[in-house]
Amino acid sequence: MSEVATPGDQFTVGLVQMTCGELMSANLAKADALIARAADRGAQIICLQELFASHYFCQREDPSYFDLAETVPGPLTTRYAALARRLGVVLVVPVFERRGPGIYHNTAAVLDADGALLGRYRKTHIPDDPLYYEKFYFTPGDLGFPVFNTRFARIGPLICWDQWFPEAARLSALAGAELLLYPSAIGWHPSERAVDGDAQHDAWRTVQRGHAIANGVFVAAINRVGHEGPPDEGLDFWGQSFVCDPAGKILAEGSVERDDVIIVTCDRADIERQRRGWPFLRDRRIDIYSGLSSRWLDDGAAGPEPSGEPDGDG
Amino acid sequence: MSEVATPGDQFTVGLVQMTCGELMSANLAKADALIARAADRGAQIICLQELFASHYFCQREDPSYFDLAETVPGPLTTRYAALARRLGVVLVVPVFERRGPGIYHNTAAVLDADGALLGRYRKTHIPDDPLYYEKFYFTPGDLGFPVFNTRFARIGPLICWDQWFPEAARLSALAGAELLLYPSAIGWHPSERAVDGDAQHDAWRTVQRGHAIANGVFVAAINRVGHEGPPDEGLDFWGQSFVCDPAGKILAEGSVERDDVIIVTCDRADIERQRRGWPFLRDRRIDIYSGLSSRWLDDGAAGPEPSGEPDGDG
Repeated sequence: MSEVATPGDQFTVGLVQMTCGELMSANLAKADALIARAADRGAQIICLQELFASHYFCQREDPSYFDLAETVPGPLTTRYAALARRLGVVLVVPVFERRGPGIYHNTAAVLDADGALLGRYRKTHIPDDPLYYEKFYFTPGDLGFPVFNTRFARIGPLICWDQWFPEAARLSALAGAELLLYPSAIGWHPSERAVDGDAQHDAWRTVQRGHAIANGVFVAAINRVGHEGPPDEGLDFWGQSFVCDPAGKILAEGSVERDDVIIVTCDRADIERQRRGWPFLRDRRIDIYSGLSSRWLDDGAAGPEPSGEPDGDG
Repeated sequence: MSEVATPGDQFTVGLVQMTCGELMSANLAKADALIARAADRGAQIICLQELFASHYFCQREDPSYFDLAETVPGPLTTRYAALARRLGVVLVVPVFERRGPGIYHNTAAVLDADGALLGRYRKTHIPDDPLYYEKFYFTPGDLGFPVFNTRFARIGPLICWDQWFPEAARLSALAGAELLLYPSAIGWHPSERAVDGDAQHDAWRTVQRGHAIANGVFVAAINRVGHEGPPDEGLDFWGQSFVCDPAGKILAEGSVERDDVIIVTCDRADIERQRRGWPFLRDRRIDIYSGLSSRWLDDGAAGPEPSGEPDGDG
C-alpha cells in the first residue's frame, strides 16, 4: 500500500528536446550536454525524445536502417547507465532495440540513479502514416504497460503514438504511475502546417492533458524539434515538450524551434488531492468494460433495449 | 457495414440549457419553449440537461425526493414523444426513473422523430461529492453504453459524471456513435469559484474534447445553468454547453449565466476524415487491454521485467 504523500514530497523532472542529424556521435554528444544541463538545474528524472540517437529514419522504408538498432542492454544503455550513476539521476533513454533477427522494437530503457537498468518499455501502438512508416520497422511491444519504481518517482514510460490512446494512460495509472512520460517524434508536414498546424498541435496537447485529468497523474511529453528531410517535404517536428499536472494544467512548455531543457518540480500531494476531489478511480464500472477488448461492436452490442415497456412495477 | 459519408451528409444538433426551479410545470413549460426555438432554428436532435424537470435535488439526501421519480415510459416520455412527433425532431429527455420499489435511475430517454421511444440510457458512473449526493438516489445503470439509430444520426447518450471516463466514450464510439451527448448538471461551489472555477471548467471541457479526439466523434455537453440553493452555499451551475468536432475543436458554446439554445450542424464526413488521418481505432491493442477491467493493478502487474538480460540473440 502506498503512503499518503504530504505537501513538499516532490520530484523534479527534466525534459530534453533537440534537433538530430544523421551522425549518431553528434546526437549523443548533444544529448549528454543537455542531460548535464538538466541535472545542473535540479532534474532528478530526465527523459530524452523518441529515437534521439538518430534522425527520424521512419520517413522512408529502407531495410538498411535496421543497422541503427542495438540490443538492450547494449552500447546506448551502458553509456547512459554510467551517466545516470555519475549524475545521480534517473534516465529514460529511447533505443531502437534489436531483440532478435527480424524482431525490432521502439523501446525506452529506464536507468535508475545508480545506473541499474530497471527495465524497458516497448512501444505498443505503432503508427503508419505518410512519412511515419513505423509498422515497417517496429514489432508491436509485448510487455504491456510497465511502471518502474525509480529512486525519485514511480514512472510509466509510453512512446509517441501511445499518447492518443486512453487505454495506455489508464493502465499505467492503475499500475501506480505518478508520472507518464511520452518520448515523441511528432511533426507537421510542411504543406499542412499553415492550415492545420495549430489544430493538430492543440489536439495533441489536449488529449494528453485529458489523460492527466482522467487519471489524476502528471504527464510529460518530450518531443523532437527541427526539420528533417528535404526542405519542402520531410517533417517539421514541433517541439513544445510540456509537463502538465494532475488537473491538466500546463506547468511548463518548450520551444517550438530550438533545443530546449524543461525543468518542472512535481508535488506528489497534487495527485492525492486531485483524486480525492474528483474520485474517478473510485467510480470506474469495471463490471461493464469488457467491450474495450473488442475491435468494434458490430452489432451496436450494448443496445438499444428490445422493448419500450418498463421492467418494474410502474 | 456503414456507408462512407460524403461531404454534405449532415445532421443538426440543438442543446437546451436552462435554469430550473422547484415547480416542475414551470420547468417543463420552459423546456417546451426552448425546444420549439431549437427546432425553429433547424435542430434535428435536441437534448435537454440532466434532471431538467426538477431542481437539482441531489444537494441533500432526502427520501421524499424519490417522489419526483416516474417510470419510463411515463408522463414525461409521453409528453415529449408527442412533442418530438409534432416537431419532427429527435429528443433526448433526462428522467429521474422509478424502475421498481427502491430501484431508481438517472436516465435519458431517446425519442425518435416519429415519437417512438427508441430506448433509454441509465447513468452508469454515479458521483458522490459534497452537494452531489447522487449515490443516495441513483442505482448504477445496468444497460451498458447503448447507441441509438435515430432518424438523423446514431447517438450515444451518456450523463454528466460519465464525461470524465474515457471508457464510456470509447465503448459508445465502438458501438458506432457519431455523436456523444452528455446531459449534465455541473457547477461551482460558490466558495471555490474565484480560485478554482476557471481551472475546473477548463478540465471539464478538456477531458471531453479529449474523448472527441481519441475517438473521432462529435461530442456535446448540455449543462444546467444558474444558482440553486442558499445564496452563499448551493451550486452555481456553469452552463457553457458546447459541441466539439471529431478533432476536438469547439464549434459553439453557450452562456455561462443564462438560458441558451446552441445549434450546430455536424458534417458526418468529418468523422471519416478524422479517423483516416489519425487512425487510432486501427491500432488499438485489444490483446493487452484486459487490465482495464481491474480496479487497481496492485502488484504493478505489467512490469517491471524480471531481468535486464536481452532475450534475443544479441
